[in-house]
Amino acid sequence: MSPPPRLGIVGIGLMGASFAAALRRSGYAGEIVGFDPAVRVAPYVDCVANSLEELAQGSETVVVATPVGACAEVFAGLAPVLAPDTVITDLGSVKCAVIDAARAAFGHAPPGFVPGHPIAGAERSGPAARRADLFDGAPVILTPGDWTAPAAVETVAGLWRGVGAVVHCMDAARHDELLAIISHLPHAAAYALVNCVAASSHADDGARYAGGGFRDFTRIAASDAVMWRDICLANRDRLLAALDDFDAQLEQFRALLRADDGDALAAFFKRATAYRARVVP
Amino acid sequence: MSPPPRLGIVGIGLMGASFAAALRRSGYAGEIVGFDPAVRVAPYVDCVANSLEELAQGSETVVVATPVGACAEVFAGLAPVLAPDTVITDLGSVKCAVIDAARAAFGHAPPGFVPGHPIAGAERSGPAARRADLFDGAPVILTPGDWTAPAAVETVAGLWRGVGAVVHCMDAARHDELLAIISHLPHAAAYALVNCVAASSHADDGARYAGGGFRDFTRIAASDAVMWRDICLANRDRLLAALDDFDAQLEQFRALLRADDGDALAAFFKRATAYRARVVP
Repeated sequence: MSPPPRLGIVGIGLMGASFAAALRRSGYAGEIVGFDPAVRVAPYVDCVANSLEELAQGSETVVVATPVGACAEVFAGLAPVLAPDTVITDLGSVKCAVIDAARAAFGHAPPGFVPGHPIAGAERSGPAARRADLFDGAPVILTPGDWTAPAAVETVAGLWRGVGAVVHCMDAARHDELLAIISHLPHAAAYALVNCVAASSHADDGARYAGGGFRDFTRIAASDAVMWRDICLANRDRLLAALDDFDAQLEQFRALLRADDGDALAAFFKRATAYRARVVP
Repeated sequence: MSPPPRLGIVGIGLMGASFAAALRRSGYAGEIVGFDPAVRVAPYVDCVANSLEELAQGSETVVVATPVGACAEVFAGLAPVLAPDTVITDLGSVKCAVIDAARAAFGHAPPGFVPGHPIAGAERSGPAARRADLFDGAPVILTPGDWTAPAAVETVAGLWRGVGAVVHCMDAARHDELLAIISHLPHAAAYALVNCVAASSHADDGARYAGGGFRDFTRIAASDAVMWRDICLANRDRLLAALDDFDAQLEQFRALLRADDGDALAAFFKRATAYRARVVP
């Protein structure tokens, strides 16, 4: 009888802990081993390894659930100890930089490597914020390359479907450009908006009268600072391009406002409202 | 026996209809008369007047619940027909422009005029979206001037407390500057962000993968376009100043990103997260 399958999770924060909890909830029969220098005991994880090497031993699949900025170091640690046919995936919000990190560490993109990005999360972070239902119905974008073994894609897609996610495939560069504009830019804008109020003479009143939209912006700006630093740096050029697009829209708005052009302002708002109807039908 | 008090509501949209519903829920004993050119029958309103003149007759209190841009016309219609001791209030998100409109229509700011702004609302609009609990616990900012009779402030504050709101008083100019930065700017930014995606080659994917923050922004951008046009025009100069502050924050972020300055980026994010802890303790 062959031993039960073994799955390693590197990084036991919100995402790693939620993935373990979701796997257990789905009835996953294999052993789950975790590794996180900051964590000694983790719920839903059968054992916590003392090193990447210990985690790698006997793991058919390794899930890297660290912030994007830590992937290079994790890959460098895994490269010498991982069996060549190991399936590797990650949960990072940026894909090209993570693929580059894998190439640098392994000398090539490993055939078992299936870059992935679950579009799910919460403003809270850390393993205590884990939710076994975090991925229910969430889209997961996989960005395999021409180097990727089809069987590895099937394994990773199967794990995600098992925890309730909906799997899509996309080119890594397209993913990064898309996420720059629908996620990284809005987060940067939210942080900048909150800092606007925090730096103003209205900081006290801003906290007191935060209804009417502002509380929503502060919610987004409560996300983990290190995670967002990593994401922004890893997707820097695409985010800078998205910021240019945003500037152009703001400048258009400002010009209409300066010109007191009520009809064009209403049209500017209505374009957004019409698009909203496509986002939330 | 004196006749029961009579309160007139001009404009029966989300705010006007919610105010009527909230008054009724609170056990308000007087007659409620409404006027809205677009509405013939309204729930919670005892009778719908055919004109501002009919609404004004016998109304001790008149609540102007129209978009900010319609206040000038409403005041002009009320000025010749309102008894001089009538208490007048409004629900507009901008106060200086509404006070100017009252001065222009009445020839002076009437002693019974108590400008007001309930910080409550919803992305839906129209009387069908009304909620009797819309003002429960909501802050209402009143901006009486040196022209205002203290008894009028007491009457308006009493109505708001009756429907569950928490009443604050503030200088009108300070109110407009505060709201420019905590509400009008975030809305403008949200509309611009959504238009960024809508105008990009990622519009289809943007709608498909709207998790991770973007859906929140589209929610804010689903607010009524005419209402927001009016607010932006009425608070134009303060909103332009807030846009300059926002530009400065965005430019700071962009410079840190260009410089790959991870520590300063994390500090930028942490400033916002720390302020968030004051907004939602």
